[in-house]
Amino acid sequence: MSVAYDPNNIFGKILRGEIPAHKVYEDDIAFAFMDIMPRAEGHVLVIPKENARDLFDVSSQTLSALIKRVQHVARVVKIALAADGMTLHQFSESAGGQVIFHLHFHILPRWEGVALRPPGVMADDAKLAAQAEKIRAAMTPFTD
Amino acid sequence: MSVAYDPNNIFGKILRGEIPAHKVYEDDIAFAFMDIMPRAEGHVLVIPKENARDLFDVSSQTLSALIKRVQHVARVVKIALAADGMTLHQFSESAGGQVIFHLHFHILPRWEGVALRPPGVMADDAKLAAQAEKIRAAMTPFTD
Repeated sequence: MSVAYDPNNIFGKILRGEIPAHKVYEDDIAFAFMDIMPRAEGHVLVIPKENARDLFDVSSQTLSALIKRVQHVARVVKIALAADGMTLHQFSESAGGQVIFHLHFHILPRWEGVALRPPGVMADDAKLAAQAEKIRAAMTPFTD
Repeated sequence: MSVAYDPNNIFGKILRGEIPAHKVYEDDIAFAFMDIMPRAEGHVLVIPKENARDLFDVSSQTLSALIKRVQHVARVVKIALAADGMTLHQFSESAGGQVIFHLHFHILPRWEGVALRPPGVMADDAKLAAQAEKIRAAMTPFTD
């Protein structure tokens, strides 16, 4: 049983343009931007435009369209940052690790021998802006 | 750039029935079974039948069909085990945490106050069998 979606969450505000984000990709289905508390260099979040709280709340149609954008953005991030691998995280409900209650996939670029950083540490904004610019410069059109 | 798929991996062998697994769900697209080194009670893996190494190697069509099965199985696992939340992990390439090189999504049921266990610890087989039975008993038909 899912709890109802509350539009008054940070990602809802980002989608509505009420607060800024370092966007790297956007289309009719998805919005992707830099995590401000990155657990890896180039940590990107991909969220649906559909109001969906978590994995249990989102429509299967939106989820299936969303994961294609996750794959596309991850591919571009991997190339842009010359990552060796990738870790995806998706957290549903606070017991599952969720903090912001709008469905999101974490794209975490990885390099051999480099561990994920602890959560909750704010990044330098200028650095995030530079990483977003690098990813956007490598972005290719998404084709379904 | 992806490395080629090598069919001589454990999940490939499971798909071909060459080694056993505690199956909880199967259809034309996906196969889901208990992780033998569970990081949470009811830790299930969902893999595509398509030979795909990782997130970068899988076709977007299979990936989008697969994530619907991940959602479906996660929903059933959550109900069957009365979980409070869910964590999904997907690892691509060894730098990303991947050990078996056939694409897989980890479904990790979560409960308030219970941390994930360290990786690499084998579970008791009878316990896994009992959990799989519990999940299968709660399984509902997947509808696309």
